[in-house]
Amino acid sequence: MSKKVAVLVAGSWGTALASVLAANGLEVTMWTRGEEQAAEINNQHRNSRFLPGAELSPRIQATTNMGEAVQGASAVLIVAPSSAMRSVVNQLKSYYTPDMLIIHATKGFETESLKRMSTVISEELECEEGHIVVLSGPSHAEEVVKRCPTTVVVASLDKAAADAAQALFMNAYFRVYTNRDMLGVELAGAFKNIIALGAGMSDGLDFGDNAKAALLTRGLAEITRIGVEMGANPLTFSGLAGIGDLVVTATSQHSRNWRAGSMLGQGQKLEDVLNSMGMVVEGIRTTKAAYFISQKYGVQMPIADQLYHVLFQDREPRDAVEALMGRDPKTEMEVMKLETWEQWHS
Amino acid sequence: MSKKVAVLVAGSWGTALASVLAANGLEVTMWTRGEEQAAEINNQHRNSRFLPGAELSPRIQATTNMGEAVQGASAVLIVAPSSAMRSVVNQLKSYYTPDMLIIHATKGFETESLKRMSTVISEELECEEGHIVVLSGPSHAEEVVKRCPTTVVVASLDKAAADAAQALFMNAYFRVYTNRDMLGVELAGAFKNIIALGAGMSDGLDFGDNAKAALLTRGLAEITRIGVEMGANPLTFSGLAGIGDLVVTATSQHSRNWRAGSMLGQGQKLEDVLNSMGMVVEGIRTTKAAYFISQKYGVQMPIADQLYHVLFQDREPRDAVEALMGRDPKTEMEVMKLETWEQWHS
Repeated sequence: MSKKVAVLVAGSWGTALASVLAANGLEVTMWTRGEEQAAEINNQHRNSRFLPGAELSPRIQATTNMGEAVQGASAVLIVAPSSAMRSVVNQLKSYYTPDMLIIHATKGFETESLKRMSTVISEELECEEGHIVVLSGPSHAEEVVKRCPTTVVVASLDKAAADAAQALFMNAYFRVYTNRDMLGVELAGAFKNIIALGAGMSDGLDFGDNAKAALLTRGLAEITRIGVEMGANPLTFSGLAGIGDLVVTATSQHSRNWRAGSMLGQGQKLEDVLNSMGMVVEGIRTTKAAYFISQKYGVQMPIADQLYHVLFQDREPRDAVEALMGRDPKTEMEVMKLETWEQWHS
Repeated sequence: MSKKVAVLVAGSWGTALASVLAANGLEVTMWTRGEEQAAEINNQHRNSRFLPGAELSPRIQATTNMGEAVQGASAVLIVAPSSAMRSVVNQLKSYYTPDMLIIHATKGFETESLKRMSTVISEELECEEGHIVVLSGPSHAEEVVKRCPTTVVVASLDKAAADAAQALFMNAYFRVYTNRDMLGVELAGAFKNIIALGAGMSDGLDFGDNAKAALLTRGLAEITRIGVEMGANPLTFSGLAGIGDLVVTATSQHSRNWRAGSMLGQGQKLEDVLNSMGMVVEGIRTTKAAYFISQKYGVQMPIADQLYHVLFQDREPRDAVEALMGRDPKTEMEVMKLETWEQWHS
């Protein structure tokens, strides 16, 4: 296997993962559309727009030429924004060969189609979804480039592919676990943004630690419930891509989802929140998606439902919380069927 | 059923739970050893030592006479410190009648014997453990008396007992879920303090959000693993008594366990930490217990192991983290056997 890995594109998370690969002795070529950004990476070993202050390894090079980036690479790591995923992979296609290990680290669904990222990639590359690997977990890019201890999960239906990805990334500060539930890892990464939005709203309402812990825990229960109904392993949601990432997202004021929720909780209207953020808030799109997905599968998602009403039907955040607290008495365990278990653990 | 509930004893959590019962229209009599404290509760409707600033309902009365406290009560709520549980229940015994609903809300094991609280209670009352209810979950007492939205779980092998406890406590700001896994709820409540200690240590070392999320998630995995081996339901650990309470404990600087861990991470020695805290740190005792329990059951608990070495064998916290990061590559899912699942979900 060649020691070259291609990374598409050069955002903060792609660059941080490139720094891990370079630390492991690999040659990394990043693909970006920005000529200036590529020149800065090549000449100054910096990516100042996305990771200000970080010094990059000289083993990380950049190019605006997709063929040059991918040529001779044994693995391709795709970290495009979910909205750009299809067009980036479409450009990759003519250079792709089936012996390349394809890993993606993008969270969220494709807009409109609501397809998962691995579905989009497999459609564009005309390869089997089962060979694709997804990398996810609780990981601020800024901490990874500083070599703070970090753990992630790599998941694929193809055990050999997951093991290869684990070997590529794992080192003394970046610990990689495998999982064969790619579906669960992708769903957890997308749905967790809804709960982070809810946690921000609770904090914006100044409801306290008890309420926030309740939101995280019962939110985890409902995204697990829908995930299982869609075919995922319940325990994936209790792992790094689920509760691990949720804790980081919902307790960090740097999280866009938490921040948008907090502004809503303080009484701002959705339009104003979106204007002042000036960028996409994944959790808002995902809340809408979850509202329709939960109806399609006939699964209750009370927190996503209430958020939908707040976001799109002018319900007061305080009324949404009252509706959640006032539901009929429940047991904690409504999650799942024995067949699900047998599918994953027999 | 009479509308009287007895609460033993009058600490902060017992008083907060009494305030919920009073809000629900019940008459509460608290038992305490402190004459002055009882007088303050009866005359000034305050418990200033344990809940400064809170105004209590006149429906909450207090007495130092156990017989008077329990006489005519349809339910007894026991919230004694784990170290005092046996002696408090021993005093209850002569007034106990089998028609009383027994609920406890105490976390931790009995020192030396390592017995769970429900075992201690059933031994002293000579009643069946299966009828006892445990109440647990993410709940700062200070927020509960302020009526901030809060969720807890009540668990019992006896469904009718759990349902009765749910009906007793549930209201518009205090939402109660049931669970039939009493063992899991008790184990999660005790073991989570180990992980909170570890999270504090990570923060003391200034390792960042990624490391802390890793500790919470992999800590959850290992306390789930030992819990399952002891007979608990894995999903209980992903519920309010597990991850919910863990999030509150590990992210609150008010938590004694987090604080002790943080001091250790900053390089202080155990003796100095204990001296400066001036009170019991449950997580330290529980780490010792877990070290022996994991060997007895042959279950790996790498985080508890490393904490044991730091606490009792002078290992440097930084070396402990390196040892955790440098373990062999693993999958996320080593948790459990199909029989466990069938036992709980068939």
